[in-house]
Amino acid sequence: MQTAPFIVIEGLEGAGKTTALGHVIDWLTERDIEFIQTREPGGTPMAEQLRELVKAIRDNEKVTAEAELLIMYASRIQLIENVIKPAQAQGKWVVGDRHDLSSRAYQGGGRGISDTLIEPIRQAVLKGFEPDLTLYLDIRPEIGLARARKRGELDRIELEQMDFFNQTRDKYLSIAQTEDKIETVDAEQKPAQVGQQIKTILSNYFDKG
Amino acid sequence: MQTAPFIVIEGLEGAGKTTALGHVIDWLTERDIEFIQTREPGGTPMAEQLRELVKAIRDNEKVTAEAELLIMYASRIQLIENVIKPAQAQGKWVVGDRHDLSSRAYQGGGRGISDTLIEPIRQAVLKGFEPDLTLYLDIRPEIGLARARKRGELDRIELEQMDFFNQTRDKYLSIAQTEDKIETVDAEQKPAQVGQQIKTILSNYFDKG
Ligand SMILES: Nc1ncnc2c1ncn2[C@@H]1O[C@H](COP(=O)(O)OP(=O)(O)OP(=O)(O)O)[C@@H](O)[C@H]1O
Ligand SMILES: Nc1ncnc2c1ncn2[C@@H]1O[C@H](COP(=O)(O)OP(=O)(O)OP(=O)(O)O)[C@@H](O)[C@H]1O
Ligand SMILES: [Mg+2]
Ligand SMILES: [Mg+2]
Repeated sequence: MQTAPFIVIEGLEGAGKTTALGHVIDWLTERDIEFIQTREPGGTPMAEQLRELVKAIRDNEKVTAEAELLIMYASRIQLIENVIKPAQAQGKWVVGDRHDLSSRAYQGGGRGISDTLIEPIRQAVLKGFEPDLTLYLDIRPEIGLARARKRGELDRIELEQMDFFNQTRDKYLSIAQTEDKIETVDAEQKPAQVGQQIKTILSNYFDKG
Repeated sequence: MQTAPFIVIEGLEGAGKTTALGHVIDWLTERDIEFIQTREPGGTPMAEQLRELVKAIRDNEKVTAEAELLIMYASRIQLIENVIKPAQAQGKWVVGDRHDLSSRAYQGGGRGISDTLIEPIRQAVLKGFEPDLTLYLDIRPEIGLARARKRGELDRIELEQMDFFNQTRDKYLSIAQTEDKIETVDAEQKPAQVGQQIKTILSNYFDKG
């Protein structure tokens, strides 16, 4: 391995991503591994401004699916170049709360933007950069949203209709089934079981055999 | 013609774009034509926020060329869908202070982003949408910047080195030479001559023969 690994947690709102991040951090800490945490959209001063701008509820202006997509990728490239790659180059592992798979699932699945738009942008911007492991926490939207609602006000994207989240989940599942380096975890299990499964996956991927 | 025309003024800082806009508006007013004005980046509430964000001088963060490009296109698609197309559909002409050619010249020429990145994004986002006429005001950067400096503080992009503006101008010129619907105007002429030439071009394009 040339640079330190990049591990990403993915899933719908309330799937348990932030909780899972804690498990990943425990696993890293047990091994004395240095790491940084990121979240998307956001994670640099400019990217956090983009996050705020894209999540804001707008009464006077329709946000086009294309603008939403472009802003997500603008935020992502700032984070990759200014935070993720420099950390990896210093040997620090990176643990991300969301990354590229979110755009493919939410903008591609939820918003229905076709791959003929997403793929050229992805490839042109990311130039092959990708996580070493993505943990996809799978949950039915109604269960996740019920969990998420407890934490406060919903933003523009979280206020979408149930159809949007079902399409997003379908896309998450279909990509997870066909691509390597994405592991699906049943996020409707009890917290302790989710945590155990995550640690097992991490050990299978990264502990020297 | 199915929808009302979209006329764009392009050129380096201080080329005389805002001045030229006045000539276009005079020409439209003489003909009792209804129109709206736009500027880019910007022109909708969200696009203006993107404008501010991308022009801000940042001491703590490098703005990647890719993020700059994506933000310009995010701003552009908001303007096209929410302002330009609705106006055109109502029979209003649209006069724009900058549009897509600026991204091709500044991000493509100035920043040196390759066409293999810009073209897929352009095509995926614009889907063939383009101005009916672009007036490119050609000027040597040192002359334009000397004019622009008089109007106040320079933003992040305006603070670039002379090389950047020379490459931007080269790209403007080479695209203008090879594409239809772009007319080059020598912006180093006296103001009255520039104005006369603009009105002649407009009449050649749009006055019924
Ligand atoms: N396996 C689980 N079973 C039941 N509740 C859970 C489980 N995992 C997390 N929760 C609870 O669900 C809520 C949302 O969890 P968490 O914040 O980790 O999700 P998230 O995916 O990060 O959500 P968000 O999309 O809002 O960031 C929290 O109250 C958390 O304690
Ligand atoms: N042909 C000209 N000759 C000399 N000065 C000119 C000419 N056209 C415009 N100017 C002056 O140059 C300055 C810049 O002009 P203007 O604001 O129209 O340019 P601009 O391209 O809109 O600039 P910016 O990029 O800053 O928006 C103004 O002071 C204007 O009066
Ligand atoms: Mg969370
Ligand atoms: Mg101007």
